[in-house]
Amino acid sequence: MLFVVFLIACGASATTGVMFKPGDWYRSLDKPSWTPPNWAFPVVWTVLYVCIAAAAARIAPLPGSGLAMALFVAQLCYNTLWTPIFFGLHRMKVGLAVIGLLWLLVAATLLAFLRLDIVAGLLFVPYLVWVTIAGALNFEVWRLNRDRMATD
Amino acid sequence: MLFVVFLIACGASATTGVMFKPGDWYRSLDKPSWTPPNWAFPVVWTVLYVCIAAAAARIAPLPGSGLAMALFVAQLCYNTLWTPIFFGLHRMKVGLAVIGLLWLLVAATLLAFLRLDIVAGLLFVPYLVWVTIAGALNFEVWRLNRDRMATD
Repeated sequence: MLFVVFLIACGASATTGVMFKPGDWYRSLDKPSWTPPNWAFPVVWTVLYVCIAAAAARIAPLPGSGLAMALFVAQLCYNTLWTPIFFGLHRMKVGLAVIGLLWLLVAATLLAFLRLDIVAGLLFVPYLVWVTIAGALNFEVWRLNRDRMATD
Repeated sequence: MLFVVFLIACGASATTGVMFKPGDWYRSLDKPSWTPPNWAFPVVWTVLYVCIAAAAARIAPLPGSGLAMALFVAQLCYNTLWTPIFFGLHRMKVGLAVIGLLWLLVAATLLAFLRLDIVAGLLFVPYLVWVTIAGALNFEVWRLNRDRMATD
């Protein structure tokens, strides 16, 4: 039951990926050589949502999980925010600020989960790795295209 | 500390209000006579975010709060999703689906909070009232403008 509710929560973030597509704008940007192919994003995110919903379902019933859950709420909300900012508004610099804060919140959630339950902490590791890649990609795309774009 | 982290989480939703403005599109729509004035929205939302962050900070440390917190996570993520869908994409029908699900999640969170702590439950009442108004407004705006708009 907990797992299902957390999956529903992840559905909000997943919906941003469906509604705010990369499209022509993203295609036209200069990107670093290590940019993952477009098909990788929905595949990776599906796996990650299942992992973090499972992690949260392990943590939520534990005594002393208040701060861990508060951090989980915050990271998932900023995750939901990033896609509309970046792909909806094309605001690469604001996106960078959002994904920087998201990275800190994911790292803090991982540490808080790890203290309560090793498995839940480990389930968060691939997520932190991917947000690191996404953050680096956001930074590089901003750096490579800042002179050409009217938007920031 | 818990209250601050929950306020940071609400900040993601608040940011959507700053980044996705109503603008000319919303101004041009036919709206019901009881539509609240534009200035009311940020004022009301600021009060509501403080109330729900305070409610969550009371609930998170309590034993047996797992499901209540899972519902809180879900409602705040769909809250963050609604503004980019409605004001960013002008998708009134998708917005209606999102705010319908949000209403159910807020009502479920209110009930789960009420069972654990009366004050936390009461702090959620104004939020449910406002989401009811916002949902009715989303419905009316869709109903009054569906023939004129290319978007749905």
